[in-house]
Amino acid sequence: MTPRAVLLLVLDGISDRPCPELGGKTPLQTASTPVLDRLAAEGICGIMDTIGPGIRPGSDTSHLSLLGYPPEKYYTGRGPLEAEGCGIHMEIGMIGFRGNYATAAPDKTIIDRRAGRIHQTGELSAAIQDGVDLSAFDVTFNFRSGAGHRAALALKGEGLGAQVSSNDPKKEGVMPPRIRPCTRKKTDKKTADVCNEFIRQSGEILERHPVNRERKKRGEPLANIILLRGAGEMGHFESFKERYGLQGSVIAAATLIIGIGKVVGLAHRNVPGSTGSIDSNLEGKIAASLDELNAREFVLTNIKGGDEAAHDRNPEEKKRFIERIDGVLTPLLERDDFLLVICADHSTPCSIGDHSADPVPLLIHGEGVRVDRVTRFDEISCAEGGLHRIRGISLMPILLDLINKAHKYGA
Amino acid sequence: MTPRAVLLLVLDGISDRPCPELGGKTPLQTASTPVLDRLAAEGICGIMDTIGPGIRPGSDTSHLSLLGYPPEKYYTGRGPLEAEGCGIHMEIGMIGFRGNYATAAPDKTIIDRRAGRIHQTGELSAAIQDGVDLSAFDVTFNFRSGAGHRAALALKGEGLGAQVSSNDPKKEGVMPPRIRPCTRKKTDKKTADVCNEFIRQSGEILERHPVNRERKKRGEPLANIILLRGAGEMGHFESFKERYGLQGSVIAAATLIIGIGKVVGLAHRNVPGSTGSIDSNLEGKIAASLDELNAREFVLTNIKGGDEAAHDRNPEEKKRFIERIDGVLTPLLERDDFLLVICADHSTPCSIGDHSADPVPLLIHGEGVRVDRVTRFDEISCAEGGLHRIRGISLMPILLDLINKAHKYGA
Repeated sequence: MTPRAVLLLVLDGISDRPCPELGGKTPLQTASTPVLDRLAAEGICGIMDTIGPGIRPGSDTSHLSLLGYPPEKYYTGRGPLEAEGCGIHMEIGMIGFRGNYATAAPDKTIIDRRAGRIHQTGELSAAIQDGVDLSAFDVTFNFRSGAGHRAALALKGEGLGAQVSSNDPKKEGVMPPRIRPCTRKKTDKKTADVCNEFIRQSGEILERHPVNRERKKRGEPLANIILLRGAGEMGHFESFKERYGLQGSVIAAATLIIGIGKVVGLAHRNVPGSTGSIDSNLEGKIAASLDELNAREFVLTNIKGGDEAAHDRNPEEKKRFIERIDGVLTPLLERDDFLLVICADHSTPCSIGDHSADPVPLLIHGEGVRVDRVTRFDEISCAEGGLHRIRGISLMPILLDLINKAHKYGA
Repeated sequence: MTPRAVLLLVLDGISDRPCPELGGKTPLQTASTPVLDRLAAEGICGIMDTIGPGIRPGSDTSHLSLLGYPPEKYYTGRGPLEAEGCGIHMEIGMIGFRGNYATAAPDKTIIDRRAGRIHQTGELSAAIQDGVDLSAFDVTFNFRSGAGHRAALALKGEGLGAQVSSNDPKKEGVMPPRIRPCTRKKTDKKTADVCNEFIRQSGEILERHPVNRERKKRGEPLANIILLRGAGEMGHFESFKERYGLQGSVIAAATLIIGIGKVVGLAHRNVPGSTGSIDSNLEGKIAASLDELNAREFVLTNIKGGDEAAHDRNPEEKKRFIERIDGVLTPLLERDDFLLVICADHSTPCSIGDHSADPVPLLIHGEGVRVDRVTRFDEISCAEGGLHRIRGISLMPILLDLINKAHKYGA
């Protein structure tokens, strides 16, 4: 029977380069992964340039590409996607920013870019939303907390541009720069002015807020300034339903991935204990994915811990996390009504601690899929698979074909 | 450790088709190449369409593509590249030509297109540079000798076009045609007029030059006419440094390859005894490549003899030359601070004696490179490698990623 749905399981940054600590093998090559290997043996494998050969993908551009939205057309900076992920409904033309709660000394020097990795900033964000007044600019705004010290800002109004700089000095011990327009356009000038006023007013509100008085008493870094970056203008995204005729969900901890899912019309399914780190509730994410597949035709599930371990340049931890992932996948073997797709969004080699352009392994498993001779899910084995080397933008058309939702071109 | 530099070793025209003389194998398949095979075993292999599937590359268009300059955008004919390779500094808008010293009979019939393969034409070229006067056209020029009977001309002035024909009859026993404009544009008409006047004046200078009086005495063919072809207008090439942040060198005997290197800002390193033929000083080229890698981040080294043997339709000689190449590569194994890339610029099958569009083998070796299961460097083995089949234009992005000079697209 042709599968009626797709589970796209993105193991964020899971692929790597040879690691000296692992005898010149990658974490995927050395990890014990009986379930992934069984899936590889029963399915078809390949490698994928999520954007293009030699292009180092961000998590945002790669996920857009995997979902079939060419980033060259759809990507307008991380801000709008983060804002959507933080629960702000971004309308076309709104300007979105990523934000951090940070600590400024009395002389305004930034002394902690993450305000002591503060958690639970909801009360502070609510105070900013209530207290800041941008009506002098004829602009309204939404400000919401994200995970930890993170937040997002969205501006709405006439004549706003998105080409502005950041007030994040990117290091500590220096003054935050003013936000400046990057062009001579009036629209960018206006956005910069609005942002600087937002930063001024929100700083005053934070300075006198009871949460900060309590933090001061306890000797904790104050959360007394907002650092904004990643400005972008929200564009038009045809929804998944319109584009493919699929109802879908997104399961992820990272607000960025949630935001990308939401802008293309995927419903966000929250999973308690999902952290985006190696301690995440993986069992819960897989169970929720299977549950969502009962009602929907597409589920994007992102598991991020491997990327985190690689950013920390820790191949042993990455390997252990891969084995943890493998251990929770067993329930996926018990059903045959959906197509299971496993890949990474980009490689994150432990040797460089950041994303690379090395192609990612790709596995497609399910009824009707041609079975190649690959029996192991790793970078080298998958390169010998029947899918060869494809681009991320080709993935959705291939999946739609396999679930019989593709349209014939010609007659 | 991530490699800090790249050695791109282009074995010009080294790949082939099955040769009946070699039992249906290619020269690469039958040659004994222990060093290339070890590099293949330790690295990652693939095949490459230097321009695109089925497109027969020239050495010029393929090298531009390999260096990341799409020939559709950057290639404006061979003339400007040859002129740069002959030591003329080509400025944007200058018109470049390849030239030959040739022999005309008293009735002007061309009786030897290469003037008896004359060498050492420097004195003749200097006399032409001193004696020809194009000031009536408000045009200045540079005329320089290349290797053997070759030379190059560059014109500089207002209102010059590049769409003009050649005065090379391409065969002997006929009169050289006049150079004609290929369009109705005044600019092309002007260039044609300038060229015809240059050919007239240079012919007179050559006719009475002592070198030719000596050649006449010795019964050698006179070098008494210049044949021009390959007209092109010099365009803008962003330099390697601007484009990639890399300082580089080019090591080659062919003026065309030197010229391509120079137009993209690579410094030319001369190697005594480097001839572009099977008798070339290969040891010297490899030693010079390693030396350049000490000071620079990119070295393009071209070894041309294999192409020559194939143009001569001699598979045995091509095979022997491949074994000679293999023998000089050993010093490359002794260092691990650079990425070693070995490929051809195009295939040159002995069976057709010219370039073909068959993909070329590609090998990337160095720290951090994923290791596939290929253990031999030939057309068929490499086709099974982990790089699969890429395009020449993707090579530079892939290399920049591997030496950690790539930029993330997105966040």
